[in-house]
Amino acid sequence: MNLTCSKNDLLNGVITVLKAVSTRTTLPILECILLQATSEGFKLITNDLELGIESKVKATIIEPGTVALKAKMFSEIVKKLPENEVEIIVDENNFTTIKCEKSKFSISGQSGEDFLQLPSISKDKYIKISQLKLKEMIRQTIFSIAIEEIRPILTGELLEIKNNELNMVSLDVHRVSISKLDFNTEINDMMVVIPGKTLNEISKILDTDEEKDVMIYFTDKHILFELEDSIIVSRLLAGDFPKYEQFFSKDYDTLVKVNKQELLMSIDRAALISRESKKNPIKITIKNNSMIITSNTDLGNVYEEIDIEVEGKELEIAFNPKYFIDALKVIDDDYLYLQFTNSHSPCIIKQVDGDEYKYLIVPIRIRA
Amino acid sequence: MNLTCSKNDLLNGVITVLKAVSTRTTLPILECILLQATSEGFKLITNDLELGIESKVKATIIEPGTVALKAKMFSEIVKKLPENEVEIIVDENNFTTIKCEKSKFSISGQSGEDFLQLPSISKDKYIKISQLKLKEMIRQTIFSIAIEEIRPILTGELLEIKNNELNMVSLDVHRVSISKLDFNTEINDMMVVIPGKTLNEISKILDTDEEKDVMIYFTDKHILFELEDSIIVSRLLAGDFPKYEQFFSKDYDTLVKVNKQELLMSIDRAALISRESKKNPIKITIKNNSMIITSNTDLGNVYEEIDIEVEGKELEIAFNPKYFIDALKVIDDDYLYLQFTNSHSPCIIKQVDGDEYKYLIVPIRIRA
Repeated sequence: MNLTCSKNDLLNGVITVLKAVSTRTTLPILECILLQATSEGFKLITNDLELGIESKVKATIIEPGTVALKAKMFSEIVKKLPENEVEIIVDENNFTTIKCEKSKFSISGQSGEDFLQLPSISKDKYIKISQLKLKEMIRQTIFSIAIEEIRPILTGELLEIKNNELNMVSLDVHRVSISKLDFNTEINDMMVVIPGKTLNEISKILDTDEEKDVMIYFTDKHILFELEDSIIVSRLLAGDFPKYEQFFSKDYDTLVKVNKQELLMSIDRAALISRESKKNPIKITIKNNSMIITSNTDLGNVYEEIDIEVEGKELEIAFNPKYFIDALKVIDDDYLYLQFTNSHSPCIIKQVDGDEYKYLIVPIRIRA
Repeated sequence: MNLTCSKNDLLNGVITVLKAVSTRTTLPILECILLQATSEGFKLITNDLELGIESKVKATIIEPGTVALKAKMFSEIVKKLPENEVEIIVDENNFTTIKCEKSKFSISGQSGEDFLQLPSISKDKYIKISQLKLKEMIRQTIFSIAIEEIRPILTGELLEIKNNELNMVSLDVHRVSISKLDFNTEINDMMVVIPGKTLNEISKILDTDEEKDVMIYFTDKHILFELEDSIIVSRLLAGDFPKYEQFFSKDYDTLVKVNKQELLMSIDRAALISRESKKNPIKITIKNNSMIITSNTDLGNVYEEIDIEVEGKELEIAFNPKYFIDALKVIDDDYLYLQFTNSHSPCIIKQVDGDEYKYLIVPIRIRA
C-alpha cells in the first residue's frame, strides 16, 4: 500500500472509527484499525463484533493494499503529526511507514486478511431521518436503559415504527422513557431493539446540522447507519421488548403544571440530603397550588416549595430523586405536566403542548 | 449566629477554603469549614494541619457566633442554592438552618470551639510580589518536585532571596528547575522550603490580574500569603535544600539554538514510541546544524529532524523524553538554548535573551 492524505482528514476518520475498537479482548486483531486502499478509495474500518464502523478518507492512492495497525498507537501518532500531507507506505511484511514533514514513524502491522470484515447488510428495508432529530431522541431516552444484564433486551432501546409514528423507548424496573416523532414512511410497521452502546457511540458521530440526514437499513439481525463519510453496523438484540404501553394509564386523579427548571433545581437540592441512602427518598406533597418537596435523613432535612397549577386531588408521594433528575435534565420545555393517580401508582411526565416525550417513574412506598 | 450574605459571595469563599479541607483524616473536625461571625466580619476557615485558609465573605451579621459544618455537604448546598440572598441561622445546639428563597436546609453542625485555629504568624518579615508573577514562577517549576518522600525536603520548592534576586527552585534526582526574578527588598537574604501541595493550592487562588499583589510573611516554621479577601497559612519544610547551583556548569562544548515548539512536538512524537518502557530513551544526535531525534523499541521506530543553529562539537546523547516535555511545556519563548558538555553530562535549557528560567536534565547512559 502507498498513499497520501491530509493529516486532518485522516484524524477525523480515525476519531470516528476508534469508537468500535475493543480495549479488553482476547482477540488482538480487534484492537486494530484496518487501513484499506482499493479502487473504491481509502477506508478505515474497525469491528468489536457488536459494532463495526467504516470511514472514508480522501486520499491519493499510489498502490492499493491493506494493513491492520494497533488502534491506540496509530491514533496517537496521527493526532501528533504536523498538520500537513501524510504519506503511508506498507511493505509486503506489513511493516508500515508513516511520514509527515520531517517526521517518520515505522511500526509493525498485521495482515489485513486477518481482520474480521463487517457483516454485509441487505439494503431493502430502510428509513431516512434527520441526524439532529435522531441524536435528540437518543439523548431523551438513553439514560433509562437497564445496566445489569439480567434481561439483556433491556440494555437496548426499542425503535418502533407504527401508525405513522417513530418511537424510541427505554425502560428498567423503575421507569420508562419514550421519545416520539411523526413519521411517514413506506415500510411496514416494525420494531427492533438496538444495543445501548451502539446508540451511545452513534450519537457522538451524528451531526448537529439540521439539514443532514442519516439512512438506516434494517435486517433481522443487524442495523446499518449510513452517514456522509461513514457507515456504522451494529447487531440487534434478540428477544421480546416489554409491552410498555400498558404501563401508561390514561386516567389520573391529580394533574400538575410546573416550571421545569424550578422543579429540577428543587429536587436536585433535596437529593443532596436524600442520596446517601436509597432508603431515604424525597417526599412530594401537592396541596393548595403548591408542591412541597422534603427529605429527612441523618444528615439533616430539606424543605423546598414550588408554586404550581393543580387540577384534582391533594397527594403525598415519594420517589428516588435520581429518576426525576435524569428525565428533567433532558426536557427542553419551560413547563410540563405531572400526572398522578395515587401514592402507589407511577407518576407520568408529559409535554404540555404535544406528545414528543413521555416519562413514567415508579414511586417508593412510604409508611402511612 | 444569624447572618445574611449573597449566594455568590458565599460560594466564592467556600471554593477558596475547600482547598485546605482534609478528605482522608481520622480527625473529623478537619473535614469541616468553620463559619465565624464576629465584630471583624464573617469568615470561612479551613485547616488540614499542613495548610490553612481563611476567607472573608461580605455579610450582614445580626448575631455573632461560630459553627463547624461538614465541608462536603455545606459546599454542595451552597453551590445548588438559587442566586439570591442566603440566611444562615445557628442555634445553641449548633443546628444550622440555611435559607434561600423557598429553599430551607437544616443540618447538624459541630461546636466552633472544637475547630483547630490557624497558627498566628508574626508579620515582621515580609515581601510583596505580583500575584500573576508568583503564579507563573510556580507553574514554571512545580512539575519537578519529588513525588516520593524519601527525602521530604524535595517534595517542596525552595524560595530564596539573594543578591536582589528571588529564585524558586525544585529538583529531584533527574532534573532541576529554576525560575528567577529581579527583586529589590529590604529584608536580608533568606531561604524557605514551601510544600508542593501549598504551592499547588495557592496557585489556584492567585489572580491573573497583573496589577494585584500578594503579601508573603515568613516565620521560621510558617509562611502566610495575604490576598485581598483571603489568607493562606502553610507550614514550611524543615531541613537543608540541596545546593543546586553546583550542578550548573558554566562551561559547555555544544550550544544549540532551537525553536521551542518544533522541539516539543518532535520529542512528544518520539515519546510515543519510547514511553512504554523506561529502558527505551530517545536519542538526540546533533550534527551539521540539525538535530535528529530517534527512538527504537519493540513497538517500532521514529525519526525526527529539526533545523537548529549549533556552536561547538557534534554530540550523541539520550534522555527520558518526559523530562524534556515537562520543561518545554512551561516555556513561553519561541527560541531557547540547549547547552551540552558530553553524553554523560546534563543538558541545560536556558533563555536566549535573559535569565528568567533554567532547567537541568540528567541524561541516560547509552551503550557505545
